[in-house]
Amino acid sequence: MSDPSEHPAEDIAHDLQGFVGLPDGVEPPPQLFDAFWAYEAALMDDDLERLGAFFATGPDVMRGDGSGLLVGRENIDRFRTGRGGAPARTVTEIQVRPITETHAYVTSVNAPDKGGRGLVTQLWERCGDQDATPGGWVITAAHVSAPPPAMDTRIWRVLGSPLVPATTADGPLAGATVAVKDIVAVPGQRIGAGVPAYLAEATVEESPADALAALLSAGASVQGIAQTDQFAYSIAGKNAAYGTPPNPAAPGAIPGGSSSGPASAVASGQATLGLGTDTAGSIRVPASYQGLWGLRPTHGAVSLKGVLPLAPSYDTPGWLARDGATLRAAAAATLDASAQRAIPSDQAVVAAALFEVADADVRHGLGDVIDALAAHGLFASLEPVSVPAPAELFRIFRSTQSAEAARSWQEWIGLHPGALAEDVAERFAWAASVTPAQEEEALEAKRQVREAIDAALGDAILLLPSASSVAPPLDASAERLQQVREATLGITAVAGITGRPALSLPLLELDGGPVGLSLVGPRGSDLALIDIALGWVDALQ
Amino acid sequence: MSDPSEHPAEDIAHDLQGFVGLPDGVEPPPQLFDAFWAYEAALMDDDLERLGAFFATGPDVMRGDGSGLLVGRENIDRFRTGRGGAPARTVTEIQVRPITETHAYVTSVNAPDKGGRGLVTQLWERCGDQDATPGGWVITAAHVSAPPPAMDTRIWRVLGSPLVPATTADGPLAGATVAVKDIVAVPGQRIGAGVPAYLAEATVEESPADALAALLSAGASVQGIAQTDQFAYSIAGKNAAYGTPPNPAAPGAIPGGSSSGPASAVASGQATLGLGTDTAGSIRVPASYQGLWGLRPTHGAVSLKGVLPLAPSYDTPGWLARDGATLRAAAAATLDASAQRAIPSDQAVVAAALFEVADADVRHGLGDVIDALAAHGLFASLEPVSVPAPAELFRIFRSTQSAEAARSWQEWIGLHPGALAEDVAERFAWAASVTPAQEEEALEAKRQVREAIDAALGDAILLLPSASSVAPPLDASAERLQQVREATLGITAVAGITGRPALSLPLLELDGGPVGLSLVGPRGSDLALIDIALGWVDALQ
Repeated sequence: MSDPSEHPAEDIAHDLQGFVGLPDGVEPPPQLFDAFWAYEAALMDDDLERLGAFFATGPDVMRGDGSGLLVGRENIDRFRTGRGGAPARTVTEIQVRPITETHAYVTSVNAPDKGGRGLVTQLWERCGDQDATPGGWVITAAHVSAPPPAMDTRIWRVLGSPLVPATTADGPLAGATVAVKDIVAVPGQRIGAGVPAYLAEATVEESPADALAALLSAGASVQGIAQTDQFAYSIAGKNAAYGTPPNPAAPGAIPGGSSSGPASAVASGQATLGLGTDTAGSIRVPASYQGLWGLRPTHGAVSLKGVLPLAPSYDTPGWLARDGATLRAAAAATLDASAQRAIPSDQAVVAAALFEVADADVRHGLGDVIDALAAHGLFASLEPVSVPAPAELFRIFRSTQSAEAARSWQEWIGLHPGALAEDVAERFAWAASVTPAQEEEALEAKRQVREAIDAALGDAILLLPSASSVAPPLDASAERLQQVREATLGITAVAGITGRPALSLPLLELDGGPVGLSLVGPRGSDLALIDIALGWVDALQ
Repeated sequence: MSDPSEHPAEDIAHDLQGFVGLPDGVEPPPQLFDAFWAYEAALMDDDLERLGAFFATGPDVMRGDGSGLLVGRENIDRFRTGRGGAPARTVTEIQVRPITETHAYVTSVNAPDKGGRGLVTQLWERCGDQDATPGGWVITAAHVSAPPPAMDTRIWRVLGSPLVPATTADGPLAGATVAVKDIVAVPGQRIGAGVPAYLAEATVEESPADALAALLSAGASVQGIAQTDQFAYSIAGKNAAYGTPPNPAAPGAIPGGSSSGPASAVASGQATLGLGTDTAGSIRVPASYQGLWGLRPTHGAVSLKGVLPLAPSYDTPGWLARDGATLRAAAAATLDASAQRAIPSDQAVVAAALFEVADADVRHGLGDVIDALAAHGLFASLEPVSVPAPAELFRIFRSTQSAEAARSWQEWIGLHPGALAEDVAERFAWAASVTPAQEEEALEAKRQVREAIDAALGDAILLLPSASSVAPPLDASAERLQQVREATLGITAVAGITGRPALSLPLLELDGGPVGLSLVGPRGSDLALIDIALGWVDALQ
């Protein structure tokens, strides 16, 4: 196309077989349309070098879309390199609002070849190299809306409106929608466990898992079946078969798992409540990484009927929610009297060892949160206690859990070579290598540690990090992920080994994202813990 | 908050408990933050009067989101009035890019109370009344991204990834995803027919409908079950129980029905292929309104096994797609030799009566399209033919169809008072009033008309509008919808009465949206029609 500045708007509209809008009597800025079309062509070619010329350099350039806002050329380049091309599209409408001789605000509508409509807003500035782009026009800020897919398959495997209706029209959870982790039985559906080969052979479940039935009876309905780490055997939240669920609280970071799908669904606003399970930290870690409330109940307080096992002496159904009231309603609808034990609300303890393995920002940030709680007079006492080193807790936890995990799945895995992602397969291979003698030794150590921790904590509330760090970035090294895993599981193992309930609260936002403060209470204090936490959060606000 | 222009950025960030980004050394424009927060407060209050003061007046102000771009204050006000408040949200980050003393580009990130993250870009201009807004700052353009719901329940009732896998790993439709109209059997799922009371009593289907099985065998998988007008008895595409599917090709307009969900799914890019049915025009009308390819096959050429009946002597499964190649693959995978009859590609006929009932823009626009086809030398002959008046075709069609519809559903409706939306209930009530004598008279007239049309058309391709108008707006009057319905059904009845295949092509875009050109061929010419149309479209490009 020749210089569009020589054309009246009608001619340009004809050229683009679409529509150009300009304020009455306003001429299009010289060469702006040339730059617009040249940029569009470079985008369709995914020509990173040409694209680069059209985006301003420096730390102030911006690009935003529904998944987040990138500021600074460096961050935008990293995104573009990883994306692998924008979807092919045809621009159908351009609205230009010239601001000065050298600035123009442009919004365009496009029709992607794959359907739907897109919207792109760009702030163009004539501050670039005149040899590099027409007129030296470059984009200094952009906002992009692309049509959403039918479903986010990183989060969901099946969705319904609802998938399963509530069994009562009212109730304390009326209107709540549940994202069910794909190891929990949903009537009329198969369990997939994050493993396509397992799904392919699964039979349709006739009844809901007990933990789901309790929610349906309280008025909640099932929104859908949400993704999980394979056989729930990871806390990262990655799934090679279905994709990694997004973390809306920390874009570009892992979601945390294994209840990754329910957590992402709740954090994304696509469900009210997540029904997950926590063996090693699989509710508390994604709650921590995504800024949610999450409860691992007292072990044994919630029926495991209808839930795939990983390590039954640790497995615990539980919930994720954006607010404490919803979490409390789910817990109250499910837990029987044994988990409704009252405890003092103002007796708190802290174990230095559990903070020492956390990242410095987590340590300091949660320290500040605890100071703030103390400053509000919420503790009659806040005592230091001693617990075994997290490395030892991790060792004991890992050996006992692994032996059970191997008993749960080793036979199936042997019959289905290649069915699992490499990292999960390696974990199961390690699990299978735990000898009966090693397991027995670890079980004996577990009994001793459990007694020691119970003695140290008594009826007090233990305050500890929900995870050793904020959510690591998606491209974190294997070494960093392993370090985070060991440090985190050393902390979360306190609840696993003692069977005590653990509640994660979203009270801290660091530069890299949120991290939770956990409250571990005596066995049976589940509801009391939530009520105490609700009071604390109220006091802080 | 006091005048933010007196604060350094750090203080403002602290006030908002979020993050403010400004280029290094640049001061925030005086009173811009006051205006930003006052606007945000008015939005949260849904105070239309205060909001109004913050938006520039006149025809050039813009507001866009994923569903479309509104230009002009009047259109924005209409949207705001209809919306009923923006979802509550907390702003977590503001990036300000001052352009001049009186212009600033602002992008902010927000955390909606209901989860997810939102992004808002605003062009602020200091051109308003200083008494009405701080500093006289007003918004002259905005682009809003809100987090998507888990699923668009206006389009879908159930979704899976996939919901039903293909029965072969390759095949001509490998990778294609199908949106199945909710009157077609999907294995493992219930049929809902757009009627919640029907769904509640439905049993789970064991096998796919024959028409679906053919697609699965060709490599397609089921993406989900898509919405339909209740019992498929409307061409508007509205559904009072589940909401009206969006029309991405004409935002703010009805989608067309009754295959409304499959059409919206395909047009939105949420499925590759729509499997629908066409009794009166239920594939051709949504195809026309949404700019899709749609085929109503020869009556009887596609098995109705596993499809809920409406009026079996007209009911016809068929397909919707964004491109002709996909439509052809679906047709070829399904149709047997009886629908693979060859016809001359260059013998076309036009009946003036079928254009006279269409809106003037449709008449003229399709006239131009036909002229363009002729100008490309695609017709050896383009003859006028005479067919009965559309009003008479509509009368015959309506009486015969209604009598069958009543036989299909009147008993169920009697047992379920209140189960249907008012307009559909009224249509069924009218249907039940057709007497056997009236039906017999209409059947006799149908036989005569069919013979007359067959004689007039022979083996030529009849060119006609797919609908009498572009998609009417959602708030069109009942009178306008009724006029459109009668005019459109008078046109579409040619295929219904003769059992001939009808293909709708997206060749025309008018101001109000697309409208299709239909090709009606001899019975059995289904595949030939698609091939001829593919050639025509190639020639036009």
